[in-house]
Amino acid sequence: MKSATGKIGIWIIGARGGLATTLIAGTHMLARKLVDTSGLITCSAEFSKLKLPQFGRFVFGGHDVRHTPLWESALAIQATTHSFPGESLKAIRSKLKSSDANIRPGMTLNCGPAIQALREPTATLHGKPDGVLRQLRKDLQEFRKQHRLERVFVVNAASTEPPLPRAPFRKSGEGLLQAIKANDKRLRACELYGAAAALECDGIINFTPNEGMLSPAVCGLAEARGVVFMGHDGKTGETLVKSALAPMFRYRNLKILSWLGYNILGDRDGQVLADPLHRASKIRNKDGILQRILGYAPTSIVRIDYVPSLEDNKTAWDFVHFEGFLGHRMSLQFTWAGTDSILAAPLVLDMVRMASLACDRGERGRMEHLSVFFKAPLGVGEDDLHVQFHRLTDYVRSAAAQD
Amino acid sequence: MKSATGKIGIWIIGARGGLATTLIAGTHMLARKLVDTSGLITCSAEFSKLKLPQFGRFVFGGHDVRHTPLWESALAIQATTHSFPGESLKAIRSKLKSSDANIRPGMTLNCGPAIQALREPTATLHGKPDGVLRQLRKDLQEFRKQHRLERVFVVNAASTEPPLPRAPFRKSGEGLLQAIKANDKRLRACELYGAAAALECDGIINFTPNEGMLSPAVCGLAEARGVVFMGHDGKTGETLVKSALAPMFRYRNLKILSWLGYNILGDRDGQVLADPLHRASKIRNKDGILQRILGYAPTSIVRIDYVPSLEDNKTAWDFVHFEGFLGHRMSLQFTWAGTDSILAAPLVLDMVRMASLACDRGERGRMEHLSVFFKAPLGVGEDDLHVQFHRLTDYVRSAAAQD
Amino acid sequence: MKSATGKIGIWIIGARGGLATTLIAGTHMLARKLVDTSGLITCSAEFSKLKLPQFGRFVFGGHDVRHTPLWESALAIQATTHSFPGESLKAIRSKLKSSDANIRPGMTLNCGPAIQALREPTATLHGKPDGVLRQLRKDLQEFRKQHRLERVFVVNAASTEPPLPRAPFRKSGEGLLQAIKANDKRLRACELYGAAAALECDGIINFTPNEGMLSPAVCGLAEARGVVFMGHDGKTGETLVKSALAPMFRYRNLKILSWLGYNILGDRDGQVLADPLHRASKIRNKDGILQRILGYAPTSIVRIDYVPSLEDNKTAWDFVHFEGFLGHRMSLQFTWAGTDSILAAPLVLDMVRMASLACDRGERGRMEHLSVFFKAPLGVGEDDLHVQFHRLTDYVRSAAAQD
Amino acid sequence: MKSATGKIGIWIIGARGGLATTLIAGTHMLARKLVDTSGLITCSAEFSKLKLPQFGRFVFGGHDVRHTPLWESALAIQATTHSFPGESLKAIRSKLKSSDANIRPGMTLNCGPAIQALREPTATLHGKPDGVLRQLRKDLQEFRKQHRLERVFVVNAASTEPPLPRAPFRKSGEGLLQAIKANDKRLRACELYGAAAALECDGIINFTPNEGMLSPAVCGLAEARGVVFMGHDGKTGETLVKSALAPMFRYRNLKILSWLGYNILGDRDGQVLADPLHRASKIRNKDGILQRILGYAPTSIVRIDYVPSLEDNKTAWDFVHFEGFLGHRMSLQFTWAGTDSILAAPLVLDMVRMASLACDRGERGRMEHLSVFFKAPLGVGEDDLHVQFHRLTDYVRSAAAQD
Repeated sequence: MKSATGKIGIWIIGARGGLATTLIAGTHMLARKLVDTSGLITCSAEFSKLKLPQFGRFVFGGHDVRHTPLWESALAIQATTHSFPGESLKAIRSKLKSSDANIRPGMTLNCGPAIQALREPTATLHGKPDGVLRQLRKDLQEFRKQHRLERVFVVNAASTEPPLPRAPFRKSGEGLLQAIKANDKRLRACELYGAAAALECDGIINFTPNEGMLSPAVCGLAEARGVVFMGHDGKTGETLVKSALAPMFRYRNLKILSWLGYNILGDRDGQVLADPLHRASKIRNKDGILQRILGYAPTSIVRIDYVPSLEDNKTAWDFVHFEGFLGHRMSLQFTWAGTDSILAAPLVLDMVRMASLACDRGERGRMEHLSVFFKAPLGVGEDDLHVQFHRLTDYVRSAAAQD
Repeated sequence: MKSATGKIGIWIIGARGGLATTLIAGTHMLARKLVDTSGLITCSAEFSKLKLPQFGRFVFGGHDVRHTPLWESALAIQATTHSFPGESLKAIRSKLKSSDANIRPGMTLNCGPAIQALREPTATLHGKPDGVLRQLRKDLQEFRKQHRLERVFVVNAASTEPPLPRAPFRKSGEGLLQAIKANDKRLRACELYGAAAALECDGIINFTPNEGMLSPAVCGLAEARGVVFMGHDGKTGETLVKSALAPMFRYRNLKILSWLGYNILGDRDGQVLADPLHRASKIRNKDGILQRILGYAPTSIVRIDYVPSLEDNKTAWDFVHFEGFLGHRMSLQFTWAGTDSILAAPLVLDMVRMASLACDRGERGRMEHLSVFFKAPLGVGEDDLHVQFHRLTDYVRSAAAQD
Repeated sequence: MKSATGKIGIWIIGARGGLATTLIAGTHMLARKLVDTSGLITCSAEFSKLKLPQFGRFVFGGHDVRHTPLWESALAIQATTHSFPGESLKAIRSKLKSSDANIRPGMTLNCGPAIQALREPTATLHGKPDGVLRQLRKDLQEFRKQHRLERVFVVNAASTEPPLPRAPFRKSGEGLLQAIKANDKRLRACELYGAAAALECDGIINFTPNEGMLSPAVCGLAEARGVVFMGHDGKTGETLVKSALAPMFRYRNLKILSWLGYNILGDRDGQVLADPLHRASKIRNKDGILQRILGYAPTSIVRIDYVPSLEDNKTAWDFVHFEGFLGHRMSLQFTWAGTDSILAAPLVLDMVRMASLACDRGERGRMEHLSVFFKAPLGVGEDDLHVQFHRLTDYVRSAAAQD
Repeated sequence: MKSATGKIGIWIIGARGGLATTLIAGTHMLARKLVDTSGLITCSAEFSKLKLPQFGRFVFGGHDVRHTPLWESALAIQATTHSFPGESLKAIRSKLKSSDANIRPGMTLNCGPAIQALREPTATLHGKPDGVLRQLRKDLQEFRKQHRLERVFVVNAASTEPPLPRAPFRKSGEGLLQAIKANDKRLRACELYGAAAALECDGIINFTPNEGMLSPAVCGLAEARGVVFMGHDGKTGETLVKSALAPMFRYRNLKILSWLGYNILGDRDGQVLADPLHRASKIRNKDGILQRILGYAPTSIVRIDYVPSLEDNKTAWDFVHFEGFLGHRMSLQFTWAGTDSILAAPLVLDMVRMASLACDRGERGRMEHLSVFFKAPLGVGEDDLHVQFHRLTDYVRSAAAQD
């Protein structure tokens, strides 16, 4: 195994959003030891023997369809959720400015009405798919070159798109490249981002429910080049708790009759999810998990409502109605109050570190040991959080032993 | 392996209480197929290949310090928690009467004020410890003989006693028998019950926090005779959820700052726990679990309050305050609303079935694979519900394979 | 004032439903003193000086579109929510049978798809509106005659219909009668029930959100005959709490930013409300109340979901996000767990008793002092529960003084 | 009526605490219009016709037993609860410094162990009661003189002391003065503060549960000099909700069986209340309210636990178990998450403004119309929040009319 020791690029789709801003600012704070490592899985005791990249080695860039500088984005976050402790934000102001300089115009091709409403025309790439793809690739090449990056990982942290319809061209890398060449009207932004990433970078993390980023076609391209990847849809809050609690009912043979989940949130994320077209992608992932864990399908309702005053402080109420001995009915309810970007950002950093390790170890393709991070883990039929976590720690132990 | 096929006795300390009544009535309902097997772990798919005793083979008896017939006990439960569906209770009325005939006077030696207040003098054994032990053993011998029982398992389902002080005689079987002979003033009821069980039965389940039932001394006696056993303190509600959720925080390196648990309940159980002396035993078990799972000690408060109107419908509110990325603080709270006897009874039945299997398999001593059932699993340093459950299913798989 | 002393008829639209069954059974239990008077406002100390009809004087009848006997309906309630204590249900079995004999076929004219799906053809009136109206009136006349009733009150306890479109004929009694004569295609069942009630009975209570029961046209007919009436939509659970709590925020000048209300319920009621067409009527009433109390409109979301396993045990989670001193944001959340029919039935009984008093006192038309009972009190621009209650007690004091 | 137009002093006992700091900083922010008037009752529409003092007229001073400058206190608050929006704190930094200069050493005579542990010796007055009283009076005189204050109001915002034992000298002003002269060992700090206030200021607000501040003796002194006053124990959070919700149950004749309230908080307040001696005073006020509103005494448990991580973000879970029609049992539970100082500070400011109005109007003695602000309103047998509020608005209307 030959570990990389140089700089590592993290290229974020949605680089000016709340998650990206928290990730960029937070990584710089970690590098300067302004904060401790709470929330980072890869900083747990179990991971201490692995050679994972230090925080100071990361360089950030990305695509976005808005112009708001990261500093302004960070101030807005600070004013609402107070995510950055004390004077830490001021201390890394210049770092945000440097990252700003690496952000390039993105696009919203067929991303759905709620996302298109957010874009600023001058921050958006125009033209035909093949030209756009060329530009995206060029952006990635320049990022790598300019910063002499040993590796580049692409992270999709964009807003949630409507579900992706099936189409033959989405099944193979070849098909996708031909569709792009033919300027197929059905192409989505995430597919172009995915293709560019597969052709230019070392690893791909799809933190969104947008399957196009890692469609079978994109996965095909990635596998062909030996790129590592994993997705879809980061498991950060209500679904995390669901996947931790549902097994308990199964263990005790307590039959779940109904599991209702009501999610309320503000922010840009909430705004996009307020549109039923967009919401559908997220609800599918939040909803399917139960049946896969339990082996049967209780009444399951998941709702997401847009409540501007909550900003990024996502709140969820879940009510679980279940049947025990003699058919007796009982209930469990919980309220989760979490700040979304704060929950999501460290997971992205964890996964980039693990992807870098996978590259060091010469792995290629799907990183199934990262299933614990996702609501709909690619190619993994296991949603039980505990099984997923032990799969990760098994990998870690084995990697540490081989080292 | 030679499976037992005859009748199996379940001898319950606290045989007229809510848990015992629910267990006895429920088992008879299961035997007559009046209810389905919800809540019974041993009826899950994972256990389907094991040869476990059918419900019709169980015969019930036990000790208690009150006279209330089981039928009256069952009617009182039905009037408050409606635990028995439809006409099922009437259908097994005669069975309760037969079980009633097997219940013998118990005792409350040094059990603490709240338990002593409950006893009825004519249902209580008097005299010196050695005489009492003789009587308890005689009761068990007669129970076995009268019903031609192939096996007898003793289950402690009595009320919660104050914590047990250390004493040298509690360390070895020999020491305990000498203390009994010497009529030591410090002896507790649960130690006499434990000694009688160890000397007369095939297995012991300590569902209470009363450690004396399976003190090192009692365990020594049991091991010497090849008796199987496990304890302490059934994990039925709030602590069950705690042991399912705490690992989730550990996985994500989310630092728990404070975990508060408020338990409210009525019933005889609540009445005894209203006394701080008695409550102490339970709180210790509910409280210690966190530190053992997390590896550090957050602020942890567990309270139990007596609220008569709730009857057996135990309610718990837990508030978890935790710190994530960048030191940001968030919270999770849950309300558990469970009927205590309904949650506890199937666990006892599960464990007796598993204990019977252990006997079939020629096992002796501590049944560590049953740790998932307990708040303070004897000799097992593992409180993570998921690890405990997988330990049980590993055992089940191995037992099925060997069969 | 001349108080009635004879028998009083309560004629229920939806006479076989959960609310009606609970009301009929409960009143008979009260008459036989099998239960105490919890939940009945008119049995509070404040009402003790009023001459209100005793429970034994009530005779029940009504319309329904299903055949299920009341006894079966009551058994189904008992099996799910255990609403009837001990042996009380058996004790009044014969009374349910007598009431059964007074129930006549109803109809579902333009009531919306979810209601029409419930009806049984042989329990449904067919034919043109004018013929149907004649039959309804005949039913009421026979009920009064057969039981020698001194007074008859009609209560609408039917399922929730979609909102009622405006139409000129709904504005005056004359217009409605002409539309019926002309067999207008737009006529709704509730308008025919309302017309029959206005023309034949002494008082009308509209416990449903179905405005047609007390449209301006029906009110006109009622006023012309001196019939007393009040509606719409009984305030039983989540909205009751909302109207008690919202004033607190106003008092303290705490600015409500968002108030979210999620209602989950099973039962026939939940089944009908699962249809968005039907749900719309209820949500409008639950939602509007906030703005009327506060004087401004916060983000307000009200959802109702159908969860069969809950049966009649309606559960609601409300989250209130508010701003205090210095713009600081805080929250209050509550979970209401109430059994709908148990909450609704006594309100109906209270209102019939108060309507009877109003008749004794020679009052006519709208009973505005009953606003405290309704989500959308007819002709009363006041939704603050406390103001509404004091309006009722002012009336009670004044009535007691005049007596 | 002759309105004051000059400067108004607010003298705070506990002037460096969280409540005082929030009050002082917030008032300066209001004066400079950096924040709006959310949370201030006296800025509601109902009060718009009254001539109440503008925020710029207030001057702050007080006693405390600690040295921490207000600016540091404010920074600590900002770091934990983020109570001060944006750059507002910096904008009023110099104002905090001026207020700092007006704070004099206090004392903790017989205040209980938890308060005594907080004091810094050099910030504490020593010596015999009569000397201390002289000093306190001198401090107040100098404050008035130095700032040419037209009026001075004393507000007790100190920590919670243990309940005050009865003693004859506490019954009359004369008795208290003699006890002070005789250096009676039983005298409490709050009694000396109260005596000084009664002898030197224009109004007294006792925001604490410490009755000695407005014992019958102090009230006697205050009445003799025409000082206006009101207390005890500001109603800010859980008890506020309780007093808003309990009437709802009474209106509906829903019988409350049990009302449990669990309060968790950090901060200095929580630290003092962690001591059972101190907690007792608060629990008594929180607990008594129910019986006074309902007219009967349900099972009522109130607990307060110290949870450092919560800082000033007080959280309370209340569970209400109640009985409705036919004796059926249901429940309501709520979780209140409020920042204590943010809730309390505006109430103090409201009351000082109202006290100033009372002085303008020539009133003397007890301000019963301010009962809505208190958990244990002095001399007012009414705890129903709604009745209390209407009493206040009746006063406001009448004051506006007479003006």
